[in-house]
Amino acid sequence: MTTAPRLEALQARIRRRGLDGFLVTQPDNRRYLSGYTACDHGIEETSGVLLIPARGTPLLLTDSRFILQAREEAAGYRVEQYRRGVIPLLEKLLPALSIRVLGFESHYILHATVLRMEKMARRIGCGLVPVTDLVEGMRIIKDREEIGRIRKSVLLNEQVFRLVHSTIEPGMTEREIALAIELTMRELGAERPAFDTIVAFAGNAARPHAVPGERELNTGDLVLIDMGLVLDGYCSDMTRTFIAGRPEKTFTERLRLVRRAQQAATAAIRPGAICRDVDRAARRVIADGGYGDLFGHALGHGVGLAVHEEPRLSPRSRKKLRPGMVVTVEPGIYLPGWGGIRLENMVVVGEEGCEILNEDTTGLDL
Amino acid sequence: MTTAPRLEALQARIRRRGLDGFLVTQPDNRRYLSGYTACDHGIEETSGVLLIPARGTPLLLTDSRFILQAREEAAGYRVEQYRRGVIPLLEKLLPALSIRVLGFESHYILHATVLRMEKMARRIGCGLVPVTDLVEGMRIIKDREEIGRIRKSVLLNEQVFRLVHSTIEPGMTEREIALAIELTMRELGAERPAFDTIVAFAGNAARPHAVPGERELNTGDLVLIDMGLVLDGYCSDMTRTFIAGRPEKTFTERLRLVRRAQQAATAAIRPGAICRDVDRAARRVIADGGYGDLFGHALGHGVGLAVHEEPRLSPRSRKKLRPGMVVTVEPGIYLPGWGGIRLENMVVVGEEGCEILNEDTTGLDL
Repeated sequence: MTTAPRLEALQARIRRRGLDGFLVTQPDNRRYLSGYTACDHGIEETSGVLLIPARGTPLLLTDSRFILQAREEAAGYRVEQYRRGVIPLLEKLLPALSIRVLGFESHYILHATVLRMEKMARRIGCGLVPVTDLVEGMRIIKDREEIGRIRKSVLLNEQVFRLVHSTIEPGMTEREIALAIELTMRELGAERPAFDTIVAFAGNAARPHAVPGERELNTGDLVLIDMGLVLDGYCSDMTRTFIAGRPEKTFTERLRLVRRAQQAATAAIRPGAICRDVDRAARRVIADGGYGDLFGHALGHGVGLAVHEEPRLSPRSRKKLRPGMVVTVEPGIYLPGWGGIRLENMVVVGEEGCEILNEDTTGLDL
Repeated sequence: MTTAPRLEALQARIRRRGLDGFLVTQPDNRRYLSGYTACDHGIEETSGVLLIPARGTPLLLTDSRFILQAREEAAGYRVEQYRRGVIPLLEKLLPALSIRVLGFESHYILHATVLRMEKMARRIGCGLVPVTDLVEGMRIIKDREEIGRIRKSVLLNEQVFRLVHSTIEPGMTEREIALAIELTMRELGAERPAFDTIVAFAGNAARPHAVPGERELNTGDLVLIDMGLVLDGYCSDMTRTFIAGRPEKTFTERLRLVRRAQQAATAAIRPGAICRDVDRAARRVIADGGYGDLFGHALGHGVGLAVHEEPRLSPRSRKKLRPGMVVTVEPGIYLPGWGGIRLENMVVVGEEGCEILNEDTTGLDL
């Protein structure tokens, strides 16, 4: 992956905003711009930040633990090591690079860190400007290479699903199935699960973010599996709901309703469509079916280097869809006591409508 | 686990600071104070926050995905659901609870979130006070129940290590071993790995935070394994370094040096000792052995609900050790090209010296 064109585009944006430089603290943005793949241990323990001047060579600042990896991976970057944290190093570098106005990622930096940066900036006479979504605004449109990687991630995820699905039988626990999924992901070459795998039986599936437990599967139980993996940096995310055994009429009816909602939303996805209108297309089907109050979350979200990113297909988002955006379409209904049904595919917005990236149809069409 | 005494202690601290209430956004603090175990998907996607008034019933604010779990787990809490994010709900609750001065966790909240909170606070005439480490200051001292859980976590981690260690043979890859470790953790009941397991052979071990790759193990290779798990919320963290086959003299000498550094530091751990002096005790041994420049990280860190927490055994920390603190002791030397040796145990500071929580001695005493 060459990151040079992305860097050029970012530097143009930096200049347009009147900044002399930009500090990248968000790890997916860091990877997107530099190719440096290190993971952070949460926001409190970064494995490095990028300092992008408005013109010229970009810098990657990291500590001794990651210095070898940074030098190998971040092609075109000058790698600098800090010993006492990022801020003292910035205090040296900013004047040396004549950066008098520095933008920073307000949406991915701790408030306490900014308080300390402000003190440092006062000492060297540098202005700090909170900026949001400068790099995210680029990442929201996937290029051809990124779509290729996402497609591979989706297909590997489905392969894992089908392998594990074929082994599910009564007596297995939610936890066992989740573990088998995450193990198979790794065995087939995924970097890691994109999020904690959800396997929920019966009533537990009434929680959209259920945690797999020790409950054993009974014949006739509803099974909801929501899983995703990271391959080559890119995420996938898929949900299927099915019955262990023969589905009853109630289940079949409800599943068909959710499926119709998904199809209605997918049909509404095209360049120029407003996110909340796509959400509404699904929500209306579910409301008309009599389950309006039981679809408590947004219809979908963008997927790329992050498993949850822009755009959001939510009732409040006025963003317009554009070619190259990749989103999930995942309506659901949740009935406390009974269970939940969610169906989730990923689609890429094309020049006209959209393309469904998933091929697996398990349980979609009863 | 009863959280009532912790809550009382926190409310006393809130009152002493002149605050009417305190907003808890840090997920480990949230679990510590409420028993609510949900995990966040990074700082950008919280599964809830605590609003602790200076007196009276504490509140847990969350969204529809987690509402059932929150009600079940957070005993003594009033659970409130938000639909449009935390801030609009706070705008209603703060005046209703007569909270006119609200403290917030500056060290675990995004800068952009604080900008939005400040707007809201201006509308309702509420003051916002950045606070750091109010709850962390309580968590740094572990009570008897917590030490019991940490001990179980350490012993389970060792059990996993020994099971996998006994299967290691030439031809296996770093990745395979790391995968076997994480699988065994789950099989034996761990919630999850506490961090990405490090398995590094030979030259790859020169990176303190090496990522397991596809390299195959050769007889005579150095193997460094750094692993930890979460059991009942509490973390463990251990590193062992050994040779696949018969160790050469150079390795044995270097390992003995690191081991002596570890022993010197452990002997220096007692109530009243200054963290940087403990770090220095290890660093001096390594410098005297001629490897002074090659121990690039701090000696250790606190462990509890978080795998990295206070206190830090670093060259700069002037904090005093106190009974009930739990820290790692992990000196290391790293030689680019050759490899690295790190040995890591966990200890709990007692009334006099300290107790080593580890029992495993694999490769420690050659």
